[in-house]
Amino acid sequence: MRSESKITARYAETDQMGIIHHSVYPVWYEVARTDFIKKAGMTYTEMEKQGLMLPLIELGCRYIYPAKYEDELTIECYIEEFKASKIKFAYEVYSKDRVLLNRGFTTHAWTNLDLKPLNMKKHFPEIYDLVLNSMEETDE
Amino acid sequence: MRSESKITARYAETDQMGIIHHSVYPVWYEVARTDFIKKAGMTYTEMEKQGLMLPLIELGCRYIYPAKYEDELTIECYIEEFKASKIKFAYEVYSKDRVLLNRGFTTHAWTNLDLKPLNMKKHFPEIYDLVLNSMEETDE
Amino acid sequence: MRSESKITARYAETDQMGIIHHSVYPVWYEVARTDFIKKAGMTYTEMEKQGLMLPLIELGCRYIYPAKYEDELTIECYIEEFKASKIKFAYEVYSKDRVLLNRGFTTHAWTNLDLKPLNMKKHFPEIYDLVLNSMEETDE
Amino acid sequence: MRSESKITARYAETDQMGIIHHSVYPVWYEVARTDFIKKAGMTYTEMEKQGLMLPLIELGCRYIYPAKYEDELTIECYIEEFKASKIKFAYEVYSKDRVLLNRGFTTHAWTNLDLKPLNMKKHFPEIYDLVLNSMEETDE
Repeated sequence: MRSESKITARYAETDQMGIIHHSVYPVWYEVARTDFIKKAGMTYTEMEKQGLMLPLIELGCRYIYPAKYEDELTIECYIEEFKASKIKFAYEVYSKDRVLLNRGFTTHAWTNLDLKPLNMKKHFPEIYDLVLNSMEETDE
Repeated sequence: MRSESKITARYAETDQMGIIHHSVYPVWYEVARTDFIKKAGMTYTEMEKQGLMLPLIELGCRYIYPAKYEDELTIECYIEEFKASKIKFAYEVYSKDRVLLNRGFTTHAWTNLDLKPLNMKKHFPEIYDLVLNSMEETDE
Repeated sequence: MRSESKITARYAETDQMGIIHHSVYPVWYEVARTDFIKKAGMTYTEMEKQGLMLPLIELGCRYIYPAKYEDELTIECYIEEFKASKIKFAYEVYSKDRVLLNRGFTTHAWTNLDLKPLNMKKHFPEIYDLVLNSMEETDE
Repeated sequence: MRSESKITARYAETDQMGIIHHSVYPVWYEVARTDFIKKAGMTYTEMEKQGLMLPLIELGCRYIYPAKYEDELTIECYIEEFKASKIKFAYEVYSKDRVLLNRGFTTHAWTNLDLKPLNMKKHFPEIYDLVLNSMEETDE
């Protein structure tokens, strides 16, 4: 499964180079991740309420072309790797005319509310299955 | 008492007008407020641990001259009004050569961790006294 | 005319109180302002290209109820005051079930690209008329 | 040469996990980079005025331990790779008691004001030498 999120670049996200500041892309990835989880049949809010958190352990971004204010972008998100201890999401940011502007990934640990790592297959088997299903699903 | 905080404007805080984005000033006010509370003999972290929070109920900013990237600024902070139910801080942002660039205020409710308003004179008398003392102190 | 913007609160916009940080509302106002200008028949990007800028001179926010992560919000925007030298926008942020969470305003100067004030009725008569029309229009 | 930057984590930089949001580290890296360039005998503001820009082409971060509000951090920055077409900076974020919380890198293209790549050894030989010298210098 891939999720698609629509984002319009905000003025506050620009910098004095006249482009979207590079630190904004991880925020957009997060919007895409939120949408992915919702599309998989859950909400991240609900996950946290159940005691499951997803802090980052690694982030990578490649900046290919700059995005600009008012650009209407599409962010695609999918799972690249999934284990009981961690999960890796990949992202692609496209312009309106389908040019790849940016790509990246985030790797997260599954933790409890105190940010201690946990085996989520064991402690959250239903969410584990949800994630697994989302990976198998083909987008029609 | 007045506190003084030194801030250097960050690149990420600029926008495509080539100036510091207006939404950054409330963040700088918060840095100044953090320093004020520390100077008054406490930390905001400690306050929250004791169960006391300070969510905003009002914010006001006046933008006089724009700040720019790498500008070395001084933010002065003082209490303008103090009650058992709320507190109002005032801020002045000065350039290196002492031009007033921006001024503003924030009004906060005293609440518990669930964001319910409380009478802090009654529930946190020591912090109440600390604040009161900080207002009487004259800066030498 | 009133514009309506839909926003979903982002994780990055939360703070450790578990609510949306107060400095985010001016950013949302700006999203709403961008949408308003587009609805009025222009884009802010186009305005800047023509040499017209809208830096803030004043900002005010009232925080009534906190917004939270993943909340689906509606931001309404309209012009409260309009002159050849400045313009004042008003904003209302509503929750999904139509509770007013936050309201505010921004006042802007009309300036050239060097941020020098100008009389926009004189220098940009077409944009002046566009704004004027947008104020007269009733939303159906 | 290594530069050292002192940063105190801001409240606005926290998220509802109670830690500093991961998108803040690239902003801190930038603060460190600004300080590095200053220590090397220049300012980034001056570089941009001369027509030289440094947009990101790649970013990487590893999150080891979370930073929290009011934490007093040290960010070390040094050049890991330097060519006429691009430059790579490395960063290490340490807690007050010298625990490595986060490490990362940014790779930048040397470009003109229109973000077109350029050979900076050829077009900005003095800045090229400055950078080269900064790499050779040993910190005492």
